[in-house]
Amino acid sequence: MISKQNSDSLFRIQSRTFEILDSFGLDQIWRESTHVKEATFWDPDENGKIQRSSRIPNNMKGLSRFDCTGTIHQGVIEGFLIRAIRASASVPSHPEVRIEGNIAPSSLDIDETLIDDQDAYPVMVTLKHFDEASEVYAKSCGNIDESLHKTSLGDCDSKPTYLQNAQPGAEELVLAKYLVGCDGAHSWVRKALGSEFRLRGETTEAIWGAMDIIPVTDFPDIRVRSMVRSTSGGSLMMIPRENKLVRLYIQLTDGLSTNSRLTRSMVTPKMLIETAKRILSPYAIDFTYIHWWSAYQIGQRSGDHFDKQGRIFLAGDAVHTHSPKAGQGMNVSMQDAYNLGWKIGLACKGLVRPKAVLPTYDMERKLVAKELIAFDRRFSELLSMHSAKDITESSVELKQFFKKAPLFTTGIGVNYASSILTVLDDEAHGLAKYVVPGKRFASCQVTNHSDGRFWELHHRMPSDGRFRIMVFGGNIAHDEQRFEVNALGQWLDKTLIPRYPPINICPFVDRRLQTVRFQSELMTPIIEIFLVHTAPRDQIDILRDVDSTYHPWHPKLGWDYDHIFTISRVVAEDTIQSRQSVYEDYGIDEERGAVVIVRPDGYVGMVTSVAVKEARTKICDWFDSFLQGLNN
Amino acid sequence: MISKQNSDSLFRIQSRTFEILDSFGLDQIWRESTHVKEATFWDPDENGKIQRSSRIPNNMKGLSRFDCTGTIHQGVIEGFLIRAIRASASVPSHPEVRIEGNIAPSSLDIDETLIDDQDAYPVMVTLKHFDEASEVYAKSCGNIDESLHKTSLGDCDSKPTYLQNAQPGAEELVLAKYLVGCDGAHSWVRKALGSEFRLRGETTEAIWGAMDIIPVTDFPDIRVRSMVRSTSGGSLMMIPRENKLVRLYIQLTDGLSTNSRLTRSMVTPKMLIETAKRILSPYAIDFTYIHWWSAYQIGQRSGDHFDKQGRIFLAGDAVHTHSPKAGQGMNVSMQDAYNLGWKIGLACKGLVRPKAVLPTYDMERKLVAKELIAFDRRFSELLSMHSAKDITESSVELKQFFKKAPLFTTGIGVNYASSILTVLDDEAHGLAKYVVPGKRFASCQVTNHSDGRFWELHHRMPSDGRFRIMVFGGNIAHDEQRFEVNALGQWLDKTLIPRYPPINICPFVDRRLQTVRFQSELMTPIIEIFLVHTAPRDQIDILRDVDSTYHPWHPKLGWDYDHIFTISRVVAEDTIQSRQSVYEDYGIDEERGAVVIVRPDGYVGMVTSVAVKEARTKICDWFDSFLQGLNN
Repeated sequence: MISKQNSDSLFRIQSRTFEILDSFGLDQIWRESTHVKEATFWDPDENGKIQRSSRIPNNMKGLSRFDCTGTIHQGVIEGFLIRAIRASASVPSHPEVRIEGNIAPSSLDIDETLIDDQDAYPVMVTLKHFDEASEVYAKSCGNIDESLHKTSLGDCDSKPTYLQNAQPGAEELVLAKYLVGCDGAHSWVRKALGSEFRLRGETTEAIWGAMDIIPVTDFPDIRVRSMVRSTSGGSLMMIPRENKLVRLYIQLTDGLSTNSRLTRSMVTPKMLIETAKRILSPYAIDFTYIHWWSAYQIGQRSGDHFDKQGRIFLAGDAVHTHSPKAGQGMNVSMQDAYNLGWKIGLACKGLVRPKAVLPTYDMERKLVAKELIAFDRRFSELLSMHSAKDITESSVELKQFFKKAPLFTTGIGVNYASSILTVLDDEAHGLAKYVVPGKRFASCQVTNHSDGRFWELHHRMPSDGRFRIMVFGGNIAHDEQRFEVNALGQWLDKTLIPRYPPINICPFVDRRLQTVRFQSELMTPIIEIFLVHTAPRDQIDILRDVDSTYHPWHPKLGWDYDHIFTISRVVAEDTIQSRQSVYEDYGIDEERGAVVIVRPDGYVGMVTSVAVKEARTKICDWFDSFLQGLNN
Repeated sequence: MISKQNSDSLFRIQSRTFEILDSFGLDQIWRESTHVKEATFWDPDENGKIQRSSRIPNNMKGLSRFDCTGTIHQGVIEGFLIRAIRASASVPSHPEVRIEGNIAPSSLDIDETLIDDQDAYPVMVTLKHFDEASEVYAKSCGNIDESLHKTSLGDCDSKPTYLQNAQPGAEELVLAKYLVGCDGAHSWVRKALGSEFRLRGETTEAIWGAMDIIPVTDFPDIRVRSMVRSTSGGSLMMIPRENKLVRLYIQLTDGLSTNSRLTRSMVTPKMLIETAKRILSPYAIDFTYIHWWSAYQIGQRSGDHFDKQGRIFLAGDAVHTHSPKAGQGMNVSMQDAYNLGWKIGLACKGLVRPKAVLPTYDMERKLVAKELIAFDRRFSELLSMHSAKDITESSVELKQFFKKAPLFTTGIGVNYASSILTVLDDEAHGLAKYVVPGKRFASCQVTNHSDGRFWELHHRMPSDGRFRIMVFGGNIAHDEQRFEVNALGQWLDKTLIPRYPPINICPFVDRRLQTVRFQSELMTPIIEIFLVHTAPRDQIDILRDVDSTYHPWHPKLGWDYDHIFTISRVVAEDTIQSRQSVYEDYGIDEERGAVVIVRPDGYVGMVTSVAVKEARTKICDWFDSFLQGLNN
């Protein structure tokens, strides 16, 4: 993967991104970020004085347990990611992932004759080592005034590994099965792929400035996300971030009026704060500490192709660019990589059929990019209005836009279309009304049957490359239903699981899970099976009543206690408190249940019935269509 | 402080200990521990076969947001503590705290002529450096079979600093203001203090074994805390812990019957597991992996004095010992140290009067030790019964005992008696019915007035040595009430705060708080002031309506936004959702409010009125009684 350090130091993390980070055990990022709970809108009154016209939550209720945007310095996130990669690299028998810096690609080719050979390395990249020892990474970690404490800022204790033995200026040729270009808006990889990969779209002349300051102000909403549209000086958006910093986006020109002779290079911090003062007047704003500033022109562009011959892929800004104001850039980009990562990973391990799985990346993410660009265009238009008339007329639309926006901006609304990985099945739809194939499988709180502990179901589903069959077994206190669930278990264990080779996963993914494995037994089925039933906990003894598929036996570790959950729990002697909303949330019948199969990236692949006669062909056909079988 | 590495590898953390750890920013320990949610009781039926007689929650509802016991390897906790100490030591201008190992004391004296001189160093300790490079610490971090992944175990990346330049066998003389002996049941410090410090109490002949195994069993309650009393082989208690381990406490003798010829040295793991098999029969239990085992005799002893001349203190097992089964040992011990730490810290900094504050340590913690010992004695008796008759007769008492136990075992019930630090005032009692001086100030969720973010109030009150005046301002939308609150603020700012010298605190205590301070301005008032009001958020503009004491101005950082909270929040346009339960939880009137003053260790010091005329004398007299003033 070829990637670039970003110099923009703010990172606005959206709900779905927090869910993804959490699935790698990186929940600390949520706790250390600044939570932006509210948005306010300020419009001019009849005298042209700005006034708060409304206040709304900065998210939609119930979309995710990460219920708002979090802002945090990008260097902090990179530090967490680098440490997590290092921790997994320290597991014996787990392949090492190295992060190298001071390297740039200088040539790129594909050997077309090898494209279809899955054992070959058709991608050839020449890499050149820099001669400067400049630490690009360190530069991105903020340059806050030395006299100020860097509480959460500049957490740079995890730097990339610089190859010790590489001579400055030396070149090395790398042969690869796959290459991913995540190298930003000016992507070298994209350019090397030729003109058909050029981004297309528009760049307007409107210039905006962005700055991170510790504001000294009497504006009352400085600690919430505020959108201010004035007739006196244009528009401004502010986003509170950590350490008393606030990010300001300040409109300098609208690209139409006479002041459009301004160019980006003419912008100064003084110009930015003076404009902000005009917009916020009669409130005062100033700063003595500025953390970062920049100027940009609004443009929305994207590529027609996200991959070349299923061997070279583009992700993030390398294939779609837009304005930073909606806080989408790195969220959509990381989600690109997250969509692609498991597909390439399983392809490299020979566990999936590359030709079946890899084309879904382009299909699934190109659509998201198009939506992002349409969203950003309208957002920018609504924020760029200058005249009192335009502002007034668009006021209702702006608020409506923002109320609906979280469905898109949180990343929760993403809905991948029908494909080999996403089975839309009208018949199955009634089984789990609110579990939609193509959407991410929502989390809910369940109770571990064996120890009574509550878990977010997402916590039990870390991003380790496995598929998961969630057997919502219904009321297994009833003999008939229990029989179905156990028969399904038998079939899964005896027929489905043995069809596919196991996977070597890293047991370090999430310390909260306390996975215990012997080193000699690191291979595990690529399909993990969970049972979530609705029977009262004390009516079921899992060792006596439930097929061992759901609580596998290990000769040294005994029975497994971590894969059977229930919705009810004993809260006091002789009292069962039912928490049936879990099934309600998913729209699943509490008696007969349903089976949900979740992809490694947490998106729903298919829904089917608990009845093994109905389920087995569907499940088997589906996995066969893209998983490499053991016997073929 | 002289302390000892403990070789017992399990640590059961109780609610209050989690609250304390959290107040140092160590919330990760809660997330990585195994949560023990339930307890079951197994008694013999009429045929002598064990059966589950009841199941109860392993805690009391509503006691704490850390709502159950957590088990975790002691080495993991020590790792977190050591890293936290290092992080604070890395703050420029903050005094370094060094952790040294391979050192033992060899002599101890007090210069009695200097006892009353607060600038003197009357304690003299000779320290001897070991010549072995043995890493005592590493040994305590578990010896789990090398072939097993050490997920959360043995997290020993933070070892104590060994003095590089100390020669093996070298001695050094340390002169100290204070000395704390936390060196365990065989405390060297205690012995050096002479016979009047000897622990007193009883040791019975009953022998118990303890072992940590990964059980291979069909006992259905192996993942909850289970107490099994059999007629076939005695009693057994099991506690689930991390990485599939279970701690078993196994009764070997009752100290009375004929088998009492057994001595501790005769105990073997085989004997332990064979006894467990007899007790659990007809269920099977065995193991292939054993992590640790030991045997102990039940004894409950404590000392009459917790300090000598206000200069040398004993804490933890050095001054009270008991059986490990109730999981109290390190909890009560850490809480000893937590009670003492801020007192010695502020005394060393010259901020409190030592003679007023330090004697409260003995007073407050000796009572807790007595309660602990009484509790442990009855617990051990109830668990040590052998005959069917005794078991049956005590069955109800055992369950009652366990239902009430959390009030003590969680540490939440601790109630320090009236003292110079704890003002019991009948008049004030009605102002905040459920806020009891001497008990820990409970947490609750409040909403930051400026950004709408929810906070546990405890999160805003880190353990940094400061007192906190929590002004529950009531409904400040009413002019009269707002006037009182602002007048109180004025008095606090102009009169109270300037009376006492400021404190130099470490801004790194909790990254979640994102404290920003300039290095040149690290001193901060020793009393921090919060306002929690009940007015609707959008009726109050804090910059316009609220005295600046509650949102202090800084010329470079602007206004403060982190000290005013409310109980209501805007959840959608034009909708205010009231969450008045916060005031209800504290028993405070929502209109007129109350003032609660919290000690640096989170215990309530006093309660008084918002009305400044009533409050000011009480508050002033109280602080004057133990804080060093600037002018005396």
